[in-house]
Amino acid sequence: MEIAILLYEGVTALDAIGPYEVLASMPDAKVHFVAKEPGIKTTHAGVPLLNADTAIADMPAPDILLIPGCPDPSYVAEDAEIIAWVKQAHETSKWTTSVCTGAIVLGAAGLLQGLSATTHWLAHEALKDYGATPTLQRVVREGKIITAAGVSSGIDMALTLAAAEYGDEIAQEIQLIIEYDPEPPFDTGSPAKAPVQMVEKLRAHFQ
Amino acid sequence: MEIAILLYEGVTALDAIGPYEVLASMPDAKVHFVAKEPGIKTTHAGVPLLNADTAIADMPAPDILLIPGCPDPSYVAEDAEIIAWVKQAHETSKWTTSVCTGAIVLGAAGLLQGLSATTHWLAHEALKDYGATPTLQRVVREGKIITAAGVSSGIDMALTLAAAEYGDEIAQEIQLIIEYDPEPPFDTGSPAKAPVQMVEKLRAHFQ
Repeated sequence: MEIAILLYEGVTALDAIGPYEVLASMPDAKVHFVAKEPGIKTTHAGVPLLNADTAIADMPAPDILLIPGCPDPSYVAEDAEIIAWVKQAHETSKWTTSVCTGAIVLGAAGLLQGLSATTHWLAHEALKDYGATPTLQRVVREGKIITAAGVSSGIDMALTLAAAEYGDEIAQEIQLIIEYDPEPPFDTGSPAKAPVQMVEKLRAHFQ
Repeated sequence: MEIAILLYEGVTALDAIGPYEVLASMPDAKVHFVAKEPGIKTTHAGVPLLNADTAIADMPAPDILLIPGCPDPSYVAEDAEIIAWVKQAHETSKWTTSVCTGAIVLGAAGLLQGLSATTHWLAHEALKDYGATPTLQRVVREGKIITAAGVSSGIDMALTLAAAEYGDEIAQEIQLIIEYDPEPPFDTGSPAKAPVQMVEKLRAHFQ
């Protein structure tokens, strides 16, 4: 099971590494971090943290394709080489997935036309530009395409994928090994649950 | 706020990157990934993924110290240079933290003597070797030392730290930005919740 996780300058690290930890634990999984050019990529917080070991040109047909997001993915969505690779990889993939605003990149590749999809709550409206119907769910599956909500939701997405591909028991074992029994100290993790003023403050800040 | 997250060959990526995503979002946070020697470190799954940008020798006094874990941390716990650095950094840190079996490294540095602490559920017994009392909680705070349970628990730990340092509202905003409203597809994320046979199977496999 060849897995390609896209990296690029400015990526949000947890978008990629949350699902990585689950997917790398699947039977026979071989994870590659891919980029236009291999090498160390700086996160959106400015840390030179994540290494791409493989060029996208050298991995045209992964079994699983994962596109992580970043605060403003427009420069990725407008990158012709990346978009061509996403389209090509999707043709033969078993699963095509995104976390957070990685869905915008899938949309720019034309993969979300007519489908329900999700993304970071701050980016929901942008999905409509690509013919998708934004859906306020944490994980949205449409055939072989799975989109996840913001940042941390990639863990839930990857466990859902592991269960669909290998069965519930394997996915449950992975969940137990990564001790994923979350206890957030607050109940403010979605715009539906956080105080309205907080939601509006962050919306204004990021727009 | 200078934050040092230790890396080493064989580290579990999500142990480091879960809390990183929270801590990097704190006001005035400056995150450094540190190692004995800077450069790319391979994860326990064999992927050359995480880059250490700073040598531990160049960061003797971080404000926040975070030690992530790996399946068998004994080679880290026996590394005299790393242990000396952990001891030194702890002397002046505001917070000294671990995720997963990173607690074993804190223990080897003598920091958990007489304290309650937690770690990955498979490693609880080992904490006793360092004079700590293993506690089946996801996040355990003892003064400025915070230990977290396995792998994914670092997100909860870091939100707890953010709240303690900056107040609930900042921590809640960070939780909303990373859309941390977890929906695990199963309820098998801790040994108390998973089927007994599954717990025993994994215990046998890893011992």
